[in-house]
Amino acid sequence: MSDATSSPTASGARPSLGPLFEPRAIAVYGASSDPTKIGGRPLDFLKASGFDGPLYPINPKSDRIQDLPAFANVASVPGSVDLAIIAVPAPGVLAALEDCAASGVRGAVVLSSGFAEVGGAGIAMQQAITSLARRTGMRVVGPNCMGLINVRRRLLGTFTPSAAGFGLLPGRISLVSQSGAFGGYCLSLIRQRGLGLNLWVTTGNQSDVDFADCVEHFAQDDATQVIVGYLEAANDRQRLFDALELARTRGKRVVVMKVGRSEAGAQAAASHTASLAGSDQVYDGVFRQFGVLRARSIDELFDIAYAASSNMPLPRGRRVGLLTVSGGVGALMADVADEAGLDVAPMPEEAQRRLKELLPFCGPRNPVDMTAQLVNDLSLFERNFQLMLEEGGYDTIVAFLSSVGQVLELSRALLGQLQSVLQRFPDRTVIMSSLASPEVRKLYEAAGVILFDEPTRAVRAAAALVHYGLRAAAAAADAPPPLPAGALPPPTHAANEVHAKAVLASAGIPVVRERLAGDADSTVRAAAELGWPVVLKIASADIAHKSEIGGVIVGLRDEAQVRAAFATLLERARSRAPQARIDGVVVAQMAGEGVETVLGVARDPVFGAVVMFGIGGVFVEAFKDVAFRVAPFGVDQARAMIEEVKGRVLLDGLRGQPAADVEALAAAIAALSVYAARHAEAIDSIDINPLLVLPHGQGVLALDGLIVPAEGGA
Amino acid sequence: MSDATSSPTASGARPSLGPLFEPRAIAVYGASSDPTKIGGRPLDFLKASGFDGPLYPINPKSDRIQDLPAFANVASVPGSVDLAIIAVPAPGVLAALEDCAASGVRGAVVLSSGFAEVGGAGIAMQQAITSLARRTGMRVVGPNCMGLINVRRRLLGTFTPSAAGFGLLPGRISLVSQSGAFGGYCLSLIRQRGLGLNLWVTTGNQSDVDFADCVEHFAQDDATQVIVGYLEAANDRQRLFDALELARTRGKRVVVMKVGRSEAGAQAAASHTASLAGSDQVYDGVFRQFGVLRARSIDELFDIAYAASSNMPLPRGRRVGLLTVSGGVGALMADVADEAGLDVAPMPEEAQRRLKELLPFCGPRNPVDMTAQLVNDLSLFERNFQLMLEEGGYDTIVAFLSSVGQVLELSRALLGQLQSVLQRFPDRTVIMSSLASPEVRKLYEAAGVILFDEPTRAVRAAAALVHYGLRAAAAAADAPPPLPAGALPPPTHAANEVHAKAVLASAGIPVVRERLAGDADSTVRAAAELGWPVVLKIASADIAHKSEIGGVIVGLRDEAQVRAAFATLLERARSRAPQARIDGVVVAQMAGEGVETVLGVARDPVFGAVVMFGIGGVFVEAFKDVAFRVAPFGVDQARAMIEEVKGRVLLDGLRGQPAADVEALAAAIAALSVYAARHAEAIDSIDINPLLVLPHGQGVLALDGLIVPAEGGA
Repeated sequence: MSDATSSPTASGARPSLGPLFEPRAIAVYGASSDPTKIGGRPLDFLKASGFDGPLYPINPKSDRIQDLPAFANVASVPGSVDLAIIAVPAPGVLAALEDCAASGVRGAVVLSSGFAEVGGAGIAMQQAITSLARRTGMRVVGPNCMGLINVRRRLLGTFTPSAAGFGLLPGRISLVSQSGAFGGYCLSLIRQRGLGLNLWVTTGNQSDVDFADCVEHFAQDDATQVIVGYLEAANDRQRLFDALELARTRGKRVVVMKVGRSEAGAQAAASHTASLAGSDQVYDGVFRQFGVLRARSIDELFDIAYAASSNMPLPRGRRVGLLTVSGGVGALMADVADEAGLDVAPMPEEAQRRLKELLPFCGPRNPVDMTAQLVNDLSLFERNFQLMLEEGGYDTIVAFLSSVGQVLELSRALLGQLQSVLQRFPDRTVIMSSLASPEVRKLYEAAGVILFDEPTRAVRAAAALVHYGLRAAAAAADAPPPLPAGALPPPTHAANEVHAKAVLASAGIPVVRERLAGDADSTVRAAAELGWPVVLKIASADIAHKSEIGGVIVGLRDEAQVRAAFATLLERARSRAPQARIDGVVVAQMAGEGVETVLGVARDPVFGAVVMFGIGGVFVEAFKDVAFRVAPFGVDQARAMIEEVKGRVLLDGLRGQPAADVEALAAAIAALSVYAARHAEAIDSIDINPLLVLPHGQGVLALDGLIVPAEGGA
Repeated sequence: MSDATSSPTASGARPSLGPLFEPRAIAVYGASSDPTKIGGRPLDFLKASGFDGPLYPINPKSDRIQDLPAFANVASVPGSVDLAIIAVPAPGVLAALEDCAASGVRGAVVLSSGFAEVGGAGIAMQQAITSLARRTGMRVVGPNCMGLINVRRRLLGTFTPSAAGFGLLPGRISLVSQSGAFGGYCLSLIRQRGLGLNLWVTTGNQSDVDFADCVEHFAQDDATQVIVGYLEAANDRQRLFDALELARTRGKRVVVMKVGRSEAGAQAAASHTASLAGSDQVYDGVFRQFGVLRARSIDELFDIAYAASSNMPLPRGRRVGLLTVSGGVGALMADVADEAGLDVAPMPEEAQRRLKELLPFCGPRNPVDMTAQLVNDLSLFERNFQLMLEEGGYDTIVAFLSSVGQVLELSRALLGQLQSVLQRFPDRTVIMSSLASPEVRKLYEAAGVILFDEPTRAVRAAAALVHYGLRAAAAAADAPPPLPAGALPPPTHAANEVHAKAVLASAGIPVVRERLAGDADSTVRAAAELGWPVVLKIASADIAHKSEIGGVIVGLRDEAQVRAAFATLLERARSRAPQARIDGVVVAQMAGEGVETVLGVARDPVFGAVVMFGIGGVFVEAFKDVAFRVAPFGVDQARAMIEEVKGRVLLDGLRGQPAADVEALAAAIAALSVYAARHAEAIDSIDINPLLVLPHGQGVLALDGLIVPAEGGA
């Protein structure tokens, strides 16, 4: 979307990160002859790794640094420089950057610390870097970061000890980390696991280049297939969304770690970043909205990245076949597959019979158990495997071979069989699990076969591929429905529930039929019009939670009951909420039996207008069993929200109850999201509690509604 | 509890497994000169590993096998033999075993297959083995198993390829697996991870020696500190309980894998073992009851075993201090610690101030973040660590050091600091996390320090140690309360709810005050005695679920309402349950507001009388959010059951509701367990639904009760 010639603006398209990751020549400001110093290490790394372009140490005090000619500044360098690595003390950073920008440098990495993270003058110095970047279009990574790496180019623009000795294999994974320490640990882990890496960057204080910029760059990068991210807090919702959406449409597989799920973790994250983080549950919703997987451990982060970086086709569906040499491990894999949402569908009866012919004592159902007999008859693997693909129709096979992978000849033979079967089923996905020697691992990975030591990790990785596969198979982005013509603006001041529901109704949310009545006679007339029985509720913009003052009386069946209830409500309001202005009472039809749900809109400090959905009662109150999405979105996302909450089982109809109208519910959620997005600046919150979901075909009804306008909102 | 001289009985004490694991001399029946055959491999392994006693190949067709003198049978060997390894074809196994028993062999391992697992004649052959074992007192492992290992003795009585080359380190972990394939995989994994192993055994068809025998043996074995078990199905509840209880009292740390959590997994396990497994949730309850941890993956199984096998002291409480060089990883660790039930308590304010003095930009709260500054000032580790133990008072510290463990000198220095601090705090537990070179790993483990590559695995292992520590710290076993004097016997035939509640009341479960009434007049009198308002319920032993026929009418406030309700109930019973014998109606006091729970007793096919507890409504019905324990047990277990269900939040008092009387609830659960155990043979099931839990201090009330007697029960 951007290139080096586009004009730099605060919120619009920004210049490409290309010069940062693909420089022709590099200058190192503050280059040191001591390779253990922050200014010496990148130069040492770049020399040792064999970066393929010229390197220019910049140091006014020396002629030579680490056996290279050194220069007083970038202007005096004999060639043109794209990338500057800045390792001078904080007070000298801005001058160095000015120098660079003036000499046509297009990217800079500021390793120095002593900026916003130390407060005081550091904040101002960092703001000056931001201004410079915006003004000149030079892209700046950092300050207070660990730098960046491009493995193909052998570009080690970093001082993390984890990069010492290079030891990195080129691959399809690119990584962006807001935390330098986390990024360094990941780099060590990537080396230890022998994963293939493409680009690596830590964004530090994010004076200019931030997490979203890097995701966007990776999304545009053809050599990147998997984007691994470590995110502490987003700072620009729209740019993050744009980057994630670009990654989605370009088929990149994104997996992130976002800490702060627990209160202890959130406090730790906050004290670490000093940034205002959105609610963790909202982040969860954002990730789901954009098809991003969220890892819960570092092992899981890289298990997913590893599997997603292979060139295996992505599964087309949830059906998984489990092939094993141990019935016990097979059952364990089935447990984990089921928990991960995969479908451990049985083999057809006839195919089971044929499996039994191949091996009388096998388990033929699914898992298919070849037993230890495999070692005596290797051809069992090919024949079982083929039958499972042919007759079982599984989208994915996860095969557990115990420690066969420690024997090279056996493993080579099995790989041959695997490849010959896969030639006939090129659209299927296979993940192998076996303890394996390094040679066998290399052999399998060179053949594009995913191999895990541990079978449950193989199954979980399969589930991740299924997720990416289903995301890829989904049609074009889920379009939000149109805002209904004649949708009313939100109230600009505290409004009573009748007004709120009129607004909601205009926005496409069905609401209960009701009338506002000011005296007993008109209350009775309204009840007669609506039809018996009715509910009476005190009407006041000043009473947000009517039931807490006894302000709701249900099941009124005749005029006498209505008159008595009218008097009771006014008396309760007088005694229990004496300050409240009373608009009268609301007379409403009694709704039929349904499932009470809660639908709302809130303003997230990071993500703006977000929609929340949950099942009413203990689910929302005690378990926070709710789903979030950023407004606006379409009915597919709304359905996914419903699917996500555990309380959804109530919508299926428990104990002979009819199933609820989930389609109408999804439509109402999507409609509210569109309204919330349209009026995001004017609304502080919307609370529809309860939104009654009637039996299938009968729709939904908002029984109550509260709209709190934004203070000074438009 | 048993030794070689005790008499073998079906259910009582059995002879020791000592001869199996500690033989002086071994005979191999069916010994082959071909070391790749099932009869050749154990001999080959034993020779190569250097077993320290005589080996006698038994083969009537050869004089020498694998360079050893061979014999026609065990009677003709020159010395005495304790252990025979049997690898002859199935039809010859019994004769070989008879031969062994006659010659004073005390233990045999039958590797041969072709027994119960193939059905038909195999079943009878296996029963003959069982009879022989019971008759002679010779202990038999197998048939159809992978054999056993004693690492210290270099005894490889197995043919699993995973044992080839020995490669095992002696240690404190002993493993029993019902599955040979699972056991073999674990053996390979143990070697790969370099874990220390003591005893290893796979029990196969369990003709004699079963899972419980092995747990009992390991529990008595001083060299074993950790018992790892793979369990498919228990076959003798009492022996399993005795073995687990022995392990508990002897301080062994037990971790098991039991597959079949999901329906797919249970079906796979069933087709694999063809044994009737108890409900998976009941197994879960049994494990909790005996302080056994249940692993959900093989990685987790051995992570726990590894940590539990160290000689670190067990934590005394849940307080965990997290020390990190990465704020992000620290937050991740805090998330995982919180999820695992650990208490990530903050450092005291004053101590935070002192930490800030040591390093101004550190995170001082908890996690304590040393930042990458550690590499420049190693002493930060010792000083931070000591402050956390001294001022934070943490029971456990989990320290994350990124990839420092890849540098030997740094790691050696840090280990020295660690040891010097721990000398002053010998009762604290430390788990380290760092990517580590093999040398560093050896160095740390030799010093008794637990070291994980991945920080979340370190935190989860810490949680496991906390579990074992709290279990060890708990007082003596939780004694069941006494059965009340005058407890009535259970009904011997279907009884109405008044009878059922009278029985429950006699057993110590408070029940609602109520009367049985046969006509309208006595119903009104009963209501007046009990006090208004009342509930009327149809009384019939033939109507188990009254509410389904509209057989309950609540909130009756006067005589007229009672008379009308009486007529309605009789009419409904007549029309909706015409076959039911009607005993009249039950008039009951209206209970106050409380939380509806469900308490019951069921007969598990494996574990007998089990008690189930859950919160009423959707929790039990849709989420199966229930806890099980085997009857009888005391109030501690009952409290743990309450703690275990997610719906417990309702008992805490939501939205201004008062907290419920959890102590009375625990007492009622324990009382029911005692009654259920006393009358286990006579009861098919008990269902108390609802058991109303009133506010704190007001007790519990069984509002309904159903006791189904066992068919032909005593």
